[in-house]
Amino acid sequence: MQFVRYSDGSGPAWGVQTEAGIHALAADPAGEPSYEDLTNQRYLDRLERAVDDGALPVVDADAVDRLAPVARPGKIVCAGLNYHDHAEEQDEEVPEVPMLFSKASTAVTNPGSPIVHPGGDEQVDYEVELAAVIGRRATDVDEDEVDDYVAGYTVLNDVSGRDAQMSDGQFFRGKSYDTFAPLGPTLVAGDDFDPNAVDVELRVNGETKQSSNTEQFIFDIHELIAYISADMTLEPGDVVTTGTPGGVGIFREPPELLEPGDSCEAEIEGIGTLENHVVAE
Amino acid sequence: MQFVRYSDGSGPAWGVQTEAGIHALAADPAGEPSYEDLTNQRYLDRLERAVDDGALPVVDADAVDRLAPVARPGKIVCAGLNYHDHAEEQDEEVPEVPMLFSKASTAVTNPGSPIVHPGGDEQVDYEVELAAVIGRRATDVDEDEVDDYVAGYTVLNDVSGRDAQMSDGQFFRGKSYDTFAPLGPTLVAGDDFDPNAVDVELRVNGETKQSSNTEQFIFDIHELIAYISADMTLEPGDVVTTGTPGGVGIFREPPELLEPGDSCEAEIEGIGTLENHVVAE
Repeated sequence: MQFVRYSDGSGPAWGVQTEAGIHALAADPAGEPSYEDLTNQRYLDRLERAVDDGALPVVDADAVDRLAPVARPGKIVCAGLNYHDHAEEQDEEVPEVPMLFSKASTAVTNPGSPIVHPGGDEQVDYEVELAAVIGRRATDVDEDEVDDYVAGYTVLNDVSGRDAQMSDGQFFRGKSYDTFAPLGPTLVAGDDFDPNAVDVELRVNGETKQSSNTEQFIFDIHELIAYISADMTLEPGDVVTTGTPGGVGIFREPPELLEPGDSCEAEIEGIGTLENHVVAE
Repeated sequence: MQFVRYSDGSGPAWGVQTEAGIHALAADPAGEPSYEDLTNQRYLDRLERAVDDGALPVVDADAVDRLAPVARPGKIVCAGLNYHDHAEEQDEEVPEVPMLFSKASTAVTNPGSPIVHPGGDEQVDYEVELAAVIGRRATDVDEDEVDDYVAGYTVLNDVSGRDAQMSDGQFFRGKSYDTFAPLGPTLVAGDDFDPNAVDVELRVNGETKQSSNTEQFIFDIHELIAYISADMTLEPGDVVTTGTPGGVGIFREPPELLEPGDSCEAEIEGIGTLENHVVAE
């Protein structure tokens, strides 16, 4: 099921998106969902029946603004170098354990909102990533229990300032400029989404730059979340991202970086297309 | 003024600590402070008069548990290599710009609470750091305006898993194990604390391991916060830490790492002593 967070002008709201539109969850007897609710298959099954029965008012999907499914994650934990094809383009060996870094949660921005180019010598790049939103507090979780802790999946464009990333050595600053974490457009919950076998694509101005499938993962989402939770507790609303496939701008010859006026579409099968345009500071 | 967050068994509370004890702020007409309140010198002056006048009930400081002044920072932004003496011990050149990294906010733990050694081959080290807690939303702030955005100062023990830090290259995981960010014991607000000229010390089992003064900063707190806020917005409750002086365990010959049973005291002049002991996982 595709959950959406949106605004119709009167503050954030949750809905379920179908071809008919957005079924507003404020009208559900249980009210709007928590991230934990989305880990509960019985909650999802009941809601699916309510949606099918037309029990919830439907909002025109084009008449509202989409919001990131998490406004301020408690943390964003990212895996570097997690696609076989991305490791190849950098001539990097496949790592033995996931390499983790973090993006500041203040970098989160909404679908359709601008990515602000910091100017100066900064080299702004795109990275389409499948992101899991945590639904239940997770400490030292086994791989085969990970599904119980995930609220759902969304798309993160891990926009990266390559100049800061490379000159600092530590990725944090280059990954954390304000607006460098577009998130959305939906949060897909439920058993029928397989995060380890979906197509992932990124287009700049309509031209495909990244195209892969999460079957290319070096560490799949279950391995990643289990690995992270062994060291640091994951909490509801935390975001875990899974790395990006080959085709990023900085490794192209010549490099193809994002400039004001460019449009990015990050699309993942079953979740939708996260579109953001680049503007000057 | 030394603010403390504490629990007397009935949930978190704020107080002002003096020699007489903890003056409970729930009894103040304005109620408990927000981080923004602490940036307001008029609020502080009024409160100081209330404390001096004995207008607030006083709690025995020994009868309560101290809590970290921020339970879950929105983010923890850390500066690496920011003391001249720490750069010298690593034979590193003085950096031209601050090198930033992040700790997960789930690593925060309270004064007196255990630091949990992750076991395995992990090498656990101490790092005493002066930390600023942000009080007002700060985007692209000038150095000479930084004081208006700081709620106060506290001590962070930037506990570090050197094995993860070094093997990942990225510092995030080694710095983010649960309990690796003890924070406290007070939050010092107001004009009469000079963050760029205070003694900083760390003791293990009573023996001094780090001893310096923030006059050794390569980038002072005003430069750091201005620099960070140019790239990423700082929000109330965010924590900015300032790096650690020389004397960390990993660079000692032979290395002196923390083991279960050890006690760490991180002390900063005017703030107090943050004491935590190490336990096995």
